Amino acid sequence: MNEPNNTSTSSTLSDKTRKRTAFFISDGTGLTVEGIGHSLLAQFPDQQVEQLTVPYVDSEARVQQVLQRIERAAQESGLQPIIITSIVSDHIRGLLHQSSALMLDVFESYLAPLASLFGSDPNRSVGVSHGIADNSRYTARIDAVHFAMDNDDGRRTREFESADIILVGVSRSGKTPTCLYLALQFGLRAANYPITEEDMDSTALPKILRPFQHKLFGLTIDPRRLMSIRQERRANSRYASPEQCEFEVRQVEQMLRRAQIPFLDATELSVEELATRLMSQAGIERRIS
Amino acid sequence: MNEPNNTSTSSTLSDKTRKRTAFFISDGTGLTVEGIGHSLLAQFPDQQVEQLTVPYVDSEARVQQVLQRIERAAQESGLQPIIITSIVSDHIRGLLHQSSALMLDVFESYLAPLASLFGSDPNRSVGVSHGIADNSRYTARIDAVHFAMDNDDGRRTREFESADIILVGVSRSGKTPTCLYLALQFGLRAANYPITEEDMDSTALPKILRPFQHKLFGLTIDPRRLMSIRQERRANSRYASPEQCEFEVRQVEQMLRRAQIPFLDATELSVEELATRLMSQAGIERRIS
Repeated sequence: MNEPNNTSTSSTLSDKTRKRTAFFISDGTGLTVEGIGHSLLAQFPDQQVEQLTVPYVDSEARVQQVLQRIERAAQESGLQPIIITSIVSDHIRGLLHQSSALMLDVFESYLAPLASLFGSDPNRSVGVSHGIADNSRYTARIDAVHFAMDNDDGRRTREFESADIILVGVSRSGKTPTCLYLALQFGLRAANYPITEEDMDSTALPKILRPFQHKLFGLTIDPRRLMSIRQERRANSRYASPEQCEFEVRQVEQMLRRAQIPFLDATELSVEELATRLMSQAGIERRIS
Repeated sequence: MNEPNNTSTSSTLSDKTRKRTAFFISDGTGLTVEGIGHSLLAQFPDQQVEQLTVPYVDSEARVQQVLQRIERAAQESGLQPIIITSIVSDHIRGLLHQSSALMLDVFESYLAPLASLFGSDPNRSVGVSHGIADNSRYTARIDAVHFAMDNDDGRRTREFESADIILVGVSRSGKTPTCLYLALQFGLRAANYPITEEDMDSTALPKILRPFQHKLFGLTIDPRRLMSIRQERRANSRYASPEQCEFEVRQVEQMLRRAQIPFLDATELSVEELATRLMSQAGIERRIS
């Protein structure tokens, strides 16, 4: 089946219901297949595709539920749905393969070549990729999260000694979410320190940061973007004025250059990109994998 | 080539250098291929595989660097390396295919069937999956992160009104990292409130939480696990004693049951699992995709 019920129903369907649906189906969190799905579909920006993550499909009852949902999507839109899946169990996968959707099955594609390389069979255990794995990993991660919370926004600097990295930049340049992401994803102890107006009398590095110069990393941002972020927070304030944003960004960039601190422009980068790029630029290795 | 240089060098190599290497290679953050790689290799727990994420491989120079590293790994271990990749550019991918590694190429596997389904060619643009995408998504995410920070640990409850979900549980049951993850990954406004000893005189819900009963979600934890987490924080304290942990967990579980608040046992679950399971149990939809 290619385009089910296309001719018979398309005239009565609105544009909305004519959207194709992609199902990202997993027996675990679904985060991996969702990532694959987003990457692949982003390559077809002209296609309107409703994207739906369906996690924890680990029983026959759950598969039957999902199968019904898929067939409903097919009938309502008149367009063949897409399934991207990483289900481990042969039985559950077999049931899923009964659907009329286009199947992109990660385990089916890649387990066989790996098994043949290793000369051993896969063990077919569910949900290992985002499981708790081991206690030391869990502890490292949680400690890093609490470290990032405690060492946010320059409120405290006495733990800077034990930081893996210290982000500096103007207020609302993206330091806090980047630190939290570094903690959650990579177990890194990331602190941050906002450069505020009182630090801007000169372009010398604030005194308190000097002992840690080797682990400082700067974030900068386009002043217009900064302005729009700050406007949402405090509309029409001096803090969000074009002059103030321009001044702060210029001062901080000069400070970073003068002290030879590496920095990234956060304007066009997501938190994931900032985190991974700064790690590779600063040569920092993850603490958990 | 299957096992390069195997016979000639294996006798002089230590166990460590005999480890096979898997390279997760991307022109973006590498987070997606890394996820796939972890899932796949977890199916072969008896295999010792060094896992290496190589992000931002987006130029010929960078590919050549990576290719050298791959061949070095092959020679040093005498074992064929593995490449899992999602590189978009045909040119860069072509260069990568020159290596002697086993290639698992996500875009190669799946773009063709999708292109044929859509009847259109992929646009081959890099790094869309973790890019900043659009401003409203960025703002929703950052706001959610700041909301989680501001509404952590019961320090403040006046914004509970606008929370999507409020996690409750004993101290160190995993509330904070779960809230931050919900914010970063799904843009959800997640607050948390620790049930402390002063709330435990009765098993009635603390007064301050009652107006928000419909958006409360509980985390519970095995008392022994809680003890070991608390011991790392405050060794030999009453807070970390077996009696105290046992008492608190029992009281909170009774409280949750009595108020009919849904809850999850965090003992064996990762932050990703907690977040995705509670969303599905509480019927909460993500705010960003």
